[in-house]
Amino acid sequence: MESQIIGILAALLTTFGFVPQIIKMIRTKSVKDVSIITFIQIGLGTFLWAIYGIYLRDLIIIIANSIAFMTLVLAIVFYFHYN
Amino acid sequence: MESQIIGILAALLTTFGFVPQIIKMIRTKSVKDVSIITFIQIGLGTFLWAIYGIYLRDLIIIIANSIAFMTLVLAIVFYFHYN
Repeated sequence: MESQIIGILAALLTTFGFVPQIIKMIRTKSVKDVSIITFIQIGLGTFLWAIYGIYLRDLIIIIANSIAFMTLVLAIVFYFHYN
Repeated sequence: MESQIIGILAALLTTFGFVPQIIKMIRTKSVKDVSIITFIQIGLGTFLWAIYGIYLRDLIIIIANSIAFMTLVLAIVFYFHYN
């Protein structure tokens, strides 16, 4: 039970980790200091983590990384929109 | 075996995901557009993922997230250095 709570908390924090960065990009409409490579690299990574979660049959890892992947796609879209 | 490769690839991509952002901060010496909340939130998240990995006895999750946590601490240090 304890590990489930930690897993869910970890998932929530990292899954929505890029939301503050996306909000900042929308607010400032400036992405000069932001690294697109970080977005792409972590986007690819979360995609593979989701697949790894499927192998492990671990729902927390699958859901967390699928949502995280979608926020990274969103971050990349906003990056090119404001770049 | 296949899942191990995917897990390791996923780990490498996300573990070093913030390195390009750190390099950009060092090169431009500017962090105006960067969100410190994203750094802190993902830093906390990777810390909890590492603990979750200990519960799962999953070495890939433990190592990946421990290193990722350290890069986030580094990113936060550079953020305040250039802010």
